[in-house]
Amino acid sequence: MTDSTHLNCRERFLCACACKPVDRPPIWMMRQAGRSLPEYMKLKKGYKFTELVQNPELASEVTLQPIRRFGYDAAVVFSDILVIAEAMGQKYELMEQGGVKMDFELNSKADVDKLDPSRVLDHISYTPEAIKLTRKELGDERAIIGFAGSPWTLASFMVEGGSSRENLRSRAMLYNEPKLFYTLLEKITEATITYVKAQIEAGADVIQLFDSQGGTLAPNMFWKISGLWMQQIIDAIGGEVPVIVFARNVHHNWQEVVQTGANVLGIDWGIRLPDVCKAIPGDVAVQGNLDPALLIARPDAAAAETQRILEEMRGRNGFIFNLGHGVPPEADLDAIQAVAATVQNFK
Amino acid sequence: MTDSTHLNCRERFLCACACKPVDRPPIWMMRQAGRSLPEYMKLKKGYKFTELVQNPELASEVTLQPIRRFGYDAAVVFSDILVIAEAMGQKYELMEQGGVKMDFELNSKADVDKLDPSRVLDHISYTPEAIKLTRKELGDERAIIGFAGSPWTLASFMVEGGSSRENLRSRAMLYNEPKLFYTLLEKITEATITYVKAQIEAGADVIQLFDSQGGTLAPNMFWKISGLWMQQIIDAIGGEVPVIVFARNVHHNWQEVVQTGANVLGIDWGIRLPDVCKAIPGDVAVQGNLDPALLIARPDAAAAETQRILEEMRGRNGFIFNLGHGVPPEADLDAIQAVAATVQNFK
Repeated sequence: MTDSTHLNCRERFLCACACKPVDRPPIWMMRQAGRSLPEYMKLKKGYKFTELVQNPELASEVTLQPIRRFGYDAAVVFSDILVIAEAMGQKYELMEQGGVKMDFELNSKADVDKLDPSRVLDHISYTPEAIKLTRKELGDERAIIGFAGSPWTLASFMVEGGSSRENLRSRAMLYNEPKLFYTLLEKITEATITYVKAQIEAGADVIQLFDSQGGTLAPNMFWKISGLWMQQIIDAIGGEVPVIVFARNVHHNWQEVVQTGANVLGIDWGIRLPDVCKAIPGDVAVQGNLDPALLIARPDAAAAETQRILEEMRGRNGFIFNLGHGVPPEADLDAIQAVAATVQNFK
Repeated sequence: MTDSTHLNCRERFLCACACKPVDRPPIWMMRQAGRSLPEYMKLKKGYKFTELVQNPELASEVTLQPIRRFGYDAAVVFSDILVIAEAMGQKYELMEQGGVKMDFELNSKADVDKLDPSRVLDHISYTPEAIKLTRKELGDERAIIGFAGSPWTLASFMVEGGSSRENLRSRAMLYNEPKLFYTLLEKITEATITYVKAQIEAGADVIQLFDSQGGTLAPNMFWKISGLWMQQIIDAIGGEVPVIVFARNVHHNWQEVVQTGANVLGIDWGIRLPDVCKAIPGDVAVQGNLDPALLIARPDAAAAETQRILEEMRGRNGFIFNLGHGVPPEADLDAIQAVAATVQNFK
């Protein structure tokens, strides 16, 4: 048994993923790198978002910035779920005012046929490269998290041609043309398996799958449109590293999220963590679930809610502290610091 | 006991609200009037949205359009939740491209102090008037639904100054300045009580409270920020008419939604209706929960999912068919018709 009193950050993180005892919950934040940090905004001058992602040295530097400032237990590689779309032939750009614009929408079989999942690493080896560079800097002190979008969430962006308020078109397509939709999900799954394996080979300790659009599916569609394809990716990883599934707003059936094979469930802020823990097996860990709005609130309010969550999870092995969604770009650095310190000092 | 084989639309609707037997579930759709209908788009030429809302004759005509076309069991008065903000001194406009823009944001105590809930009916008697005119047309054949936003949902729009993607500022304000936030909620509640009572007096058979932003609250905040204030409104209605509470994405605690005193719970499409029914008392009805994306899908797909929901609710007294959210503006008329006919022909 690990001595839980002498863990470094990486060990603490991996113990929590495995539901083993830890000295205190590990912490990282979704979207911890990027626009919330002044050092990122400084570096970003003169580059497009995609240029930063595609340059391993710059991406690694951005990955390290929040670790230096806040001492998180894990670094999440700076990249984007849409690199998979790009690697299959559908380019995208992040708009300055927020949101994503893709080169085209998927409307027909011809559009889906154009996508090629077979040569992913010709296009996006930059993310595995960024992981290698980050590992050199961090050694074995911190965990490194690689990630990908869930096939459904990616398909949704690809069909809509970017961000959309309600992703109605992609849901209509799955009702109207299920076969075409399955072809699309298959291609994305194939590309994603290649991609996450390359991230693991490059040194990722953990993979997180972002099913940010999972909660927009009706309960009877979730497994066949989203869960099943995440399961295939997790099967292909084959236990080599733990996998976190963040299925946002999927509150209807924890069994189906567990059935993906996830080692850790990422939980949004719309549900109580202890309620989730009651509904899942004891060897599945949870991650979450602070309201991200607290990062633009007063630091003492952010610290108080952080403490509340830590207390309600006290004694449950397998808990990783995080937000219920990403760090808002307008987050206040003192509020972030207050949250991080509260977790890091928790006894 | 009512003879459930000889119900008109209004009786069917009211029986379902009261969990009494009916011949088939009643049907209406949130946002059934408006941009999805060509007759609305024709009428709308030359008027702003707010001009239609503020003219009782036009609002009543718009209210009646979907009844004529689809024969729904209930007409919902054409209005907007933001009329309460306007009546208290904060004007708004609906943008052509969708979304809401208010005259100003609430940033401070001074902004909240400016709001006056005491003379609501001087400003917004147009909605009760529209209900009276609609009653003249419909007689006792159809139910008429009046509505209001929940205090939290309205407060969120008022603090943000309109639509916002994540309503972070309003959530930060409730953590930062709870007293100021409670003052705001109190004022909205006072104005809303006056307003819904006037709707009932004008002939509304049912009141629906829209807590569309309810699911953006962390579970430990829901009751004190949203549920409690809806309870005050329902208490003030005092059982005169049934009340539907549509608390979108609030999946964490059905007891707290029931505790508002709602007679009917409106359910989004992210959860299974039978699961909700298991968690609530048998004398509370449910309403929902078709995925609105089916209205832009093929009519046969829309009909099939409608049938599936009808079957899973077969035998449960107290079920009103509806979407899980509003009719999308780009809805296909044939898909809407297929859904309506499937419910109307259900045996």
